[in-house]
Amino acid sequence: MEKKGLLFVVSAPSGAGKTSLCRGVVEELPNVHYSVSYTTRPPRPDEVDGKDYCFVDEATFRERIDKNDFLEWAEVHGNLYGTSREALMSRTEKGVDVILDVDSQGAMTLKKKCADGVYVYILPPSFEALRQRLTDRRSDSEAEIARRLQKAREEIWNYRQYYYLIVNENYKDALRDLTAIVLAERIKAKRVNLSWLEETFIKQLNKGA
Amino acid sequence: MEKKGLLFVVSAPSGAGKTSLCRGVVEELPNVHYSVSYTTRPPRPDEVDGKDYCFVDEATFRERIDKNDFLEWAEVHGNLYGTSREALMSRTEKGVDVILDVDSQGAMTLKKKCADGVYVYILPPSFEALRQRLTDRRSDSEAEIARRLQKAREEIWNYRQYYYLIVNENYKDALRDLTAIVLAERIKAKRVNLSWLEETFIKQLNKGA
Repeated sequence: MEKKGLLFVVSAPSGAGKTSLCRGVVEELPNVHYSVSYTTRPPRPDEVDGKDYCFVDEATFRERIDKNDFLEWAEVHGNLYGTSREALMSRTEKGVDVILDVDSQGAMTLKKKCADGVYVYILPPSFEALRQRLTDRRSDSEAEIARRLQKAREEIWNYRQYYYLIVNENYKDALRDLTAIVLAERIKAKRVNLSWLEETFIKQLNKGA
Repeated sequence: MEKKGLLFVVSAPSGAGKTSLCRGVVEELPNVHYSVSYTTRPPRPDEVDGKDYCFVDEATFRERIDKNDFLEWAEVHGNLYGTSREALMSRTEKGVDVILDVDSQGAMTLKKKCADGVYVYILPPSFEALRQRLTDRRSDSEAEIARRLQKAREEIWNYRQYYYLIVNENYKDALRDLTAIVLAERIKAKRVNLSWLEETFIKQLNKGA
């Protein structure tokens, strides 16, 4: 099996539900791995180190930057976030697809480096819905929520940089859409391994089977 | 609703299961119409006029050619097959997606005329499986089966002309793949109507909501 895994990069305004959707796809489909980001942001009460993020202090994060371990990293709302090159590559080299959620800065950096990746943007059904979700989460201060909403205002216009757009009106339909993207991308003709096709089919034709 | 419907063109060697899959997608998803081809081929015992094909005699078919009513037409195994322009356009103009199965000649003609269409090729899991399916169908003579297999041998190499490849190993997975293609194509960023996005989301942002 020489086929390399695909990279799915999912971005969204904070609160649009990208993390739940990525995790949902991993539960739905075999052979997809959810890649956890590194961050210097303090964990929220319900977050688990290594599952939600790899939580590290700023010194450790900067060490990794110096070692060139991050495929992308960015400062968002005063915290550092990064995608480990090693964690990602070790999966795709084995033919496992990797899905990761990153902020829009990170997605655009990855897009320059990994042109063959699949870039997906999740939109909330309305701005009011976004505000509601951030408020309901009860994990961020009012100032933090205001910052996140302001960032949404700025980045939303960038949506045409992505290949797919999902409006997260309800989780079930949005998950069906994200799952469909993974399935459809896997069977794009340009990705199909000719040697596989020859082995399973074309050789038989030539033998006059 | 000004959004035009999408065109999905599904092709496959005869016996690979393309018609069942197209019909399956129409049952699975709302807003997709299966477009029935015209043919001069005599109906098989279980085939219904207007449902499986519009069965017409050669004179009627040639009249339609002269009226330029076929978006594509081709002679396959000595019979004429054609796609009605009117039947197809009347749906897509109303925003309904249309799925049709045509032979590979027809698909390639449509690809030149409808560049925005989505071209899907279905492969049987093996050549032996294809032969088995044609034999099991008990509707074609041995000479006819031999002709269909020979055509499969010739056209299979053309698979890179299509955007997606589905190996129809089992109906359930192949249907899931074809459904995924329709869902994913619908949410491609390039297809998203900016005015829709403005109405539902961006206007609210600008109001400072």
